[in-house]
Amino acid sequence: MSRASDRKRPLVSAAPADPSRRQLLTAGLVAGAGAALTGLAVRPAVAAGDPAITEIQDWNRYLGDGVDARPYGTPSPFESKVVRRNVAWLTADPVSSVNFTPLHELDGIITPNGLCFERHHAGIAEVDPAMHRLMISGLVDKPLVFTMADLKRFPRENRVYFLECAANSGMEWRGAQLNGCQFTHGMVHCVVYTGVRLRLLLEEAGVKANGKWLLAEGADSSAMTRSIPMEKALDDCMVAFAMNGEALRPEQGYPLRLVVPGWEGNMWVKWLRRLEVGDMAWHHREETSKYTDLLANGKARRFTWVMDVKSVITSPSPQAPVTHGRGPLVISGLAWSGNGTISRVDVTTDGGRNWKTARLDGPSLPKALHRFYLDIDWDGSELLLQSRAIDADGFVQPTKDELRAARGENSIYHNNGIQTWYVKADGVVENVEVS
Amino acid sequence: MSRASDRKRPLVSAAPADPSRRQLLTAGLVAGAGAALTGLAVRPAVAAGDPAITEIQDWNRYLGDGVDARPYGTPSPFESKVVRRNVAWLTADPVSSVNFTPLHELDGIITPNGLCFERHHAGIAEVDPAMHRLMISGLVDKPLVFTMADLKRFPRENRVYFLECAANSGMEWRGAQLNGCQFTHGMVHCVVYTGVRLRLLLEEAGVKANGKWLLAEGADSSAMTRSIPMEKALDDCMVAFAMNGEALRPEQGYPLRLVVPGWEGNMWVKWLRRLEVGDMAWHHREETSKYTDLLANGKARRFTWVMDVKSVITSPSPQAPVTHGRGPLVISGLAWSGNGTISRVDVTTDGGRNWKTARLDGPSLPKALHRFYLDIDWDGSELLLQSRAIDADGFVQPTKDELRAARGENSIYHNNGIQTWYVKADGVVENVEVS
Repeated sequence: MSRASDRKRPLVSAAPADPSRRQLLTAGLVAGAGAALTGLAVRPAVAAGDPAITEIQDWNRYLGDGVDARPYGTPSPFESKVVRRNVAWLTADPVSSVNFTPLHELDGIITPNGLCFERHHAGIAEVDPAMHRLMISGLVDKPLVFTMADLKRFPRENRVYFLECAANSGMEWRGAQLNGCQFTHGMVHCVVYTGVRLRLLLEEAGVKANGKWLLAEGADSSAMTRSIPMEKALDDCMVAFAMNGEALRPEQGYPLRLVVPGWEGNMWVKWLRRLEVGDMAWHHREETSKYTDLLANGKARRFTWVMDVKSVITSPSPQAPVTHGRGPLVISGLAWSGNGTISRVDVTTDGGRNWKTARLDGPSLPKALHRFYLDIDWDGSELLLQSRAIDADGFVQPTKDELRAARGENSIYHNNGIQTWYVKADGVVENVEVS
Repeated sequence: MSRASDRKRPLVSAAPADPSRRQLLTAGLVAGAGAALTGLAVRPAVAAGDPAITEIQDWNRYLGDGVDARPYGTPSPFESKVVRRNVAWLTADPVSSVNFTPLHELDGIITPNGLCFERHHAGIAEVDPAMHRLMISGLVDKPLVFTMADLKRFPRENRVYFLECAANSGMEWRGAQLNGCQFTHGMVHCVVYTGVRLRLLLEEAGVKANGKWLLAEGADSSAMTRSIPMEKALDDCMVAFAMNGEALRPEQGYPLRLVVPGWEGNMWVKWLRRLEVGDMAWHHREETSKYTDLLANGKARRFTWVMDVKSVITSPSPQAPVTHGRGPLVISGLAWSGNGTISRVDVTTDGGRNWKTARLDGPSLPKALHRFYLDIDWDGSELLLQSRAIDADGFVQPTKDELRAARGENSIYHNNGIQTWYVKADGVVENVEVS
């Protein structure tokens, strides 16, 4: 596992930089100003005399690491800042806490497995897949216990879904709090799941006529449980054993998790060991004292499962400031809806007075993240950036004020309000509120 | 970065297993034979008295690792066998060699970044993105040099493409050689690329009327170069800086690689530093002495860029034998074509006498991997498994004998022939040839 820099096998013995190569690398320097790029002015790519290209770099004078270096690959050391982050003051103990996805560093719609946010209630269970079982019990004709090998004999499917914690953006209910989309919106990720449609397993067990609810239980030491209505269980839920092609990661429920497309992440029970069929909801802790929405009148909304239409600009954003000055600027972000696909995203640069339709790019799949871009020519003046998503059912992402008017400020869950980033003239970006 | 097993924070102080929980876990045992599953007989999931479920496991009596354990996540220790592998005797030195994708362990169509096969000619270049430049030179109106920051100011796109080495399955030309699809077919992977359409950069530089070819050059110490016709360069080629949402991996060309959809992997130049526009092909080493197809008559086909329609069954396969005996068996595999989408995959279990249409599942995207399944009821008799892909242009994957009749046996490149796995009655699988 040696790094190339440790062994440095020279191709030529201490030779000086090849003069002809030096000539080559300096021949194409751009001397002047930019040309037309899809209607936008372009900055000169490199100023003459840039030391970076007038000196030969090391990397093509030495043989690099061979294929024996990393059986399982890792990111470049230059990407060491691209990591999940937790917020120490947010929770009392890291075993019941959150590690946020670095959305500001990512692109496209797939989240790499190593960067998917993690939320645990009693730490990461270390489950031996050979010892793991899934039981279906309760109001069924035939209780069943499946090994992992058993589950892999059922017909499989592959589906791309976002997973969002109901508390994502929760701190923002009372105004701009956290300075970075990793922290304001980083409790969402999107991967390809491979597994078995839950319906097939329930049909195998035979749900009795009065079996209207399902209790999903995890094998971690919190024994997480959530009630799921049978209609959803028989619709698009999956029992998944793989994400992005490989086995689930430990922090995502290895070896088995429930997939509840479009619904709040807490229901996607990890380390899934039991599914009990019942005739009513269980009203356990995670669906009463937690994961309910306390309204202004003191009453709590329960069972608000669907994650509403939402979006956020991931770059520029507080952790991804503009460093290149005026001229072409790529505004990029994510949109999603628990109802299905995203049909449109609007972006404003002036705090909501004028809106432009963003360009959606990449696969558009139901209940998956969508990537949008708006390519602008920045004149260097201050911006108030916002995005507003509209889903295929016609639902429009609301403002935070609209949410507060409807639901008060007691809740932390299901904040799908429009987020505002304030881009200053020097490119620094801050989390702000506009009214 | 402590493992939970090292610190073991007990939830209850050395308490014996909860008797009520013990009862719960044994209550649902399946005593007898299987029931109907989409027309297939199902084996009882667990035999009564299975020690795995009559004893309480450790993992829910201790708090696991918290969110501070792994800023960048890694696979479960139980998945340590899921790695890229090289074949020591295949090449003289690991700096110019191959590390194969473990296709037999994967599912869906996305390859995790850490498992994408790697092929180097002078090891992995270690490039500092802040120092990296891309130059466009030659027959252009305006030579340009781009920093990475410059490239990220152009409009971006996200596309899912397979990348296959022209030598994939090359050892099989002369008959069954390597015992496992990781080695016979593991020089293919499929990820989402994010980057800039090459056309935009070429338009920026202004290609002269006689600019008909492009030379792409890498920054590693092999200074890999390949000639690409301008028609392809202006069509769907990309200059990519991200894969599966995050920065390219070092072994995949970090920070910049050329994406040449559907065409042989050697052209997807990694650590891309230069694009020279010329009026004819360069006929460099990698397109003359290598990556040409030596025919039976001693002449070599050059510039055979497109990767033809192909498929392989990934499970069962020699590294993924059948371990569960007769009954429901999931046959799964991958299909792809450099021409576009896959329209159909046929699977035979009797060496080609009878064929069934497999079920394609997951997104069907042009020039991307497609996942197929055939769910069968295995009677325990020997099988000769083959898959045959048909693409949207109507091209049909040939047999190896058809390929040999057309092209002889001198070549190692562009073997898209049908692969055969021999499943024995005990579930062991071997790589064989049938005529």
